[in-house]
Amino acid sequence: MNTQDQTTRINGLDQAQMVQTIDAIKETPSLARFQFRARNTWIDGGENRSTIQDFYGAGREDDSRTTPFQFTNGEPPVLLGANEGANPVEFLLHALAGCVTTTFILHAAARGIQIRELATELDGDIDLQGLLGLDETVSPGYEQIRIKMHVQADCTDQELDDLMAYSREHSPVCNTVCRPVPVTVTRA
Amino acid sequence: MNTQDQTTRINGLDQAQMVQTIDAIKETPSLARFQFRARNTWIDGGENRSTIQDFYGAGREDDSRTTPFQFTNGEPPVLLGANEGANPVEFLLHALAGCVTTTFILHAAARGIQIRELATELDGDIDLQGLLGLDETVSPGYEQIRIKMHVQADCTDQELDDLMAYSREHSPVCNTVCRPVPVTVTRA
Repeated sequence: MNTQDQTTRINGLDQAQMVQTIDAIKETPSLARFQFRARNTWIDGGENRSTIQDFYGAGREDDSRTTPFQFTNGEPPVLLGANEGANPVEFLLHALAGCVTTTFILHAAARGIQIRELATELDGDIDLQGLLGLDETVSPGYEQIRIKMHVQADCTDQELDDLMAYSREHSPVCNTVCRPVPVTVTRA
Repeated sequence: MNTQDQTTRINGLDQAQMVQTIDAIKETPSLARFQFRARNTWIDGGENRSTIQDFYGAGREDDSRTTPFQFTNGEPPVLLGANEGANPVEFLLHALAGCVTTTFILHAAARGIQIRELATELDGDIDLQGLLGLDETVSPGYEQIRIKMHVQADCTDQELDDLMAYSREHSPVCNTVCRPVPVTVTRA
């Protein structure tokens, strides 16, 4: 009777694997401890490149990636660059958009809600007097970030609003932005 | 005598343009107000893609990018994906590495310090019980992020340490992570 279970997917996620993962973490909470990593090399001016490959999680070093991901930060001409890549504060918006989206999709799946379409638009305000050190009362980071979410799903508006609020609270990147997270910088 | 000034570069940055930018902002602080943007579309499961192109800054809409940047978030198999891309919390590390690097390079240039090499290694810890909602006392985001910086520069160790501390304080992404930044999510 249950032969279909192993391949049942909702929102592209394997339901059996979801249940197995959650059961394993409930039994051994340390499996939920992950360490993510990046290595970055300065190239010139506002251009630098990151390599991302290994991480630790689920009790072991991951070896699923045979080649590293590489991403280039750049700056537009108005910020002294040549558009070598998106700039770091734009990559932060990409990370935030992706994390809120994946958190939404995951918890929709856990609730049995099929998502048909999901798109987000983000914008955030920065006053560069902070970066430049011209006014020490101005915070160098984002003042605020707004996410507009377009969703088509087989559920009520109330269920959508609940999912949106839940995703905002449980998204790792959104939580990292909303909450003060300590960053240490040391010389190697 | 000053014919060389217009093309003098330090750490790959045009010194004359740096001075002009800072003078313009000192005279008209509203030129420092920027708005950055991203648009993201869910594909399937933990895969989604961002488009980044336009932004507002220096008093106008920027039109320097004729084609948009595109970046794909994915997840590794242990997180129910197929390594379609780096995952969002890894992209956050890329953004943070790039921002601290560019802030360091910029303020080194402003102080007349030539940087020969600069590389960073980042790692950060996350307990996925937070994302999964299995333990509401666990924060879903990074617990802490460590940056190790390798620098070769024509200055003293004390000057390097000062620059590192200053960059940590003035980097827009680092400040966004270290400080609580409000994020709103609304239905479009």
